[in-house]
Amino acid sequence: MPQQPSQPIRLLVAGVGNVGRRFLELLALKQVPLRERQGLEFAVVGAADSSGAALCPAGLNLQVVIDLKAAGRSVAHYPGWGRPLSSALEMVQAADADVLLEASPANLRDGQPGLGHIEAALSHGMHVVTANKAPLVLAYPRLLALAQATGAELRFDATVAGGLPAINLGQRDLGFADIHRLEGLVNLTANYILTRMAEDGLSYDQALAEAQAAGHAEADPSLDVDGWDTASKLVILAHSVLGQPISLGDVRVEGIRHVTAGMLRQATAEGKRVKLLAVAERQGDGYRFTVAPTWLDATHPMAQLGAEQMGIVFHTDICGVISAAIVEETPLPTAAAMLRDVVGIYSEQLRAGQWEQVGKGQSSTIERGTRSSGV
Amino acid sequence: MPQQPSQPIRLLVAGVGNVGRRFLELLALKQVPLRERQGLEFAVVGAADSSGAALCPAGLNLQVVIDLKAAGRSVAHYPGWGRPLSSALEMVQAADADVLLEASPANLRDGQPGLGHIEAALSHGMHVVTANKAPLVLAYPRLLALAQATGAELRFDATVAGGLPAINLGQRDLGFADIHRLEGLVNLTANYILTRMAEDGLSYDQALAEAQAAGHAEADPSLDVDGWDTASKLVILAHSVLGQPISLGDVRVEGIRHVTAGMLRQATAEGKRVKLLAVAERQGDGYRFTVAPTWLDATHPMAQLGAEQMGIVFHTDICGVISAAIVEETPLPTAAAMLRDVVGIYSEQLRAGQWEQVGKGQSSTIERGTRSSGV
Repeated sequence: MPQQPSQPIRLLVAGVGNVGRRFLELLALKQVPLRERQGLEFAVVGAADSSGAALCPAGLNLQVVIDLKAAGRSVAHYPGWGRPLSSALEMVQAADADVLLEASPANLRDGQPGLGHIEAALSHGMHVVTANKAPLVLAYPRLLALAQATGAELRFDATVAGGLPAINLGQRDLGFADIHRLEGLVNLTANYILTRMAEDGLSYDQALAEAQAAGHAEADPSLDVDGWDTASKLVILAHSVLGQPISLGDVRVEGIRHVTAGMLRQATAEGKRVKLLAVAERQGDGYRFTVAPTWLDATHPMAQLGAEQMGIVFHTDICGVISAAIVEETPLPTAAAMLRDVVGIYSEQLRAGQWEQVGKGQSSTIERGTRSSGV
Repeated sequence: MPQQPSQPIRLLVAGVGNVGRRFLELLALKQVPLRERQGLEFAVVGAADSSGAALCPAGLNLQVVIDLKAAGRSVAHYPGWGRPLSSALEMVQAADADVLLEASPANLRDGQPGLGHIEAALSHGMHVVTANKAPLVLAYPRLLALAQATGAELRFDATVAGGLPAINLGQRDLGFADIHRLEGLVNLTANYILTRMAEDGLSYDQALAEAQAAGHAEADPSLDVDGWDTASKLVILAHSVLGQPISLGDVRVEGIRHVTAGMLRQATAEGKRVKLLAVAERQGDGYRFTVAPTWLDATHPMAQLGAEQMGIVFHTDICGVISAAIVEETPLPTAAAMLRDVVGIYSEQLRAGQWEQVGKGQSSTIERGTRSSGV
């Protein structure tokens, strides 16, 4: 059982929508076990949505924030500590905190506002955990360099395949292996639509409507059904797992709009399944990157994934073929992946015998058990 | 790119059979990328088999060891540095090293000789990476306490489901979640037999003979087909992932000898698959632990696993249902899991900004990039 640090770890949450709000709910739910089992104590010292922020150095009452958002109100209305802000960036620049949780909407055009939040945090040496993939898709090398320069950690397990630790698997468990092929079924909307069409005989429009009703598709589903969300995740995997600094323009992208119920019936009759697959395939010194509806044999690890599942497959030189999948009925596991990243930053430091509490005027160190003098 | 430590990390290998020998082959294969990509340099300063040992403080030539074993000879014949030893324990007690790789045969009766090796290493503050599950099954709490007392790491990802990072997933990625049900298809022999019987209409005896011919079953397959190997892995998962200090006697175990080709035909006709499943199911404050042939719906994540696959499923409170599987045609991925564990110990220390080189007379520290003074 690790000792507790003298001060709680101070978190900022930028974006309190679907994922950010669930992150706060999770934190409230897991406060006690995190303290008792992992020796970690957290305080959310700031939260910002599109209308304002609530900032309290001693830590916000999470239930008050959750209730405000559930009532459709801004955190700017938080009693005593709420305030209108022109942008969440102001909060990141002004607040004294250890970790920024970035959960603003993804914007693949210029990455804003998330990109600005992440840059501001990292350049101050603040760790960043992001569920927002756009900043990584557009500026991965720059953000990584910034993190390395300031000694901050940049984690983003929540950006690919929701709550599945796909990045962790690729980076940490397979970082010493050679991955010659990577396959990702990483967009729930597209998979939901294709699976419902294939299994329940729905038309594309019917399946899309059901996806929207179930909260699995946005009002404008273009990014998902045209393959760009999948391609974005492939770009992040390419950078972080394959060491390939690519951009969206390097991915051949084909969406699912043209897939018909008839094509899916035919595939099923032939024992196949059609999935929107992101693929990185080794070619010479590099990889070929594609996103396209793909006809898979029924024995393929991704073929059997249901409407509410996502997954990933790594074909390696020395670790065999490793696949992983998640059933994700709501964005809760995605929010949990953010919490996993936060916990990961600090529990690794604890395991490695070092605790470094970042923040003005506070610094505490947990010493590792001393080694036996016989060594 | 991390800096390199001034001295290589010194490894001892106890057991140079199927897994230990492949570990050495992997290390030879990955030497350059490990140095260049992870900044890690290794030297095998000792290797022991049942007839003797080779010990060289400057590091053995891996190819010489590999060639000796390929020729069916003991490492005791290593030119200049080989010697007969009454036991590998002598090597562990005498050698100056940083990590013990324990790959002796598993012995569920008293855990020896592996248990002695691990105790000796940990009590000297030497990290241990084991593929041998028996010592953990019989003495997990004691070994963990010993490791904590001396500040050594005890890692064992190779003990469950071969090269699949099942322990890593459970401990590190899901350590903050509540796992209410865990399912493991973690014995390749039993799965190979059941799958070949179901898919190819073989009898139990035919399937067993083919498993033996393919190197997937031992001459005496009792531990595998009677479920005790699966139960052992469940005991390790219970301790390490579920925090349940159980022993083999707490698991209700049923093997696969009584499963007939007719039962499997019937199951297939009903759209089911039969797998030897380890299950931990939450019950009150604890869990109920069982190992038994289990009739699974075709949509179950483990149902579709082929003859040479293993896998695991975690049913969680906040991370959805997460499953993972591996195709493992040889023990190579299991040996790779040992290498993953070794790399993990040191790369985590590097990431957390601390390098501690364990060993007499040498100590080097890699400092983390200093934080921006603006924080």
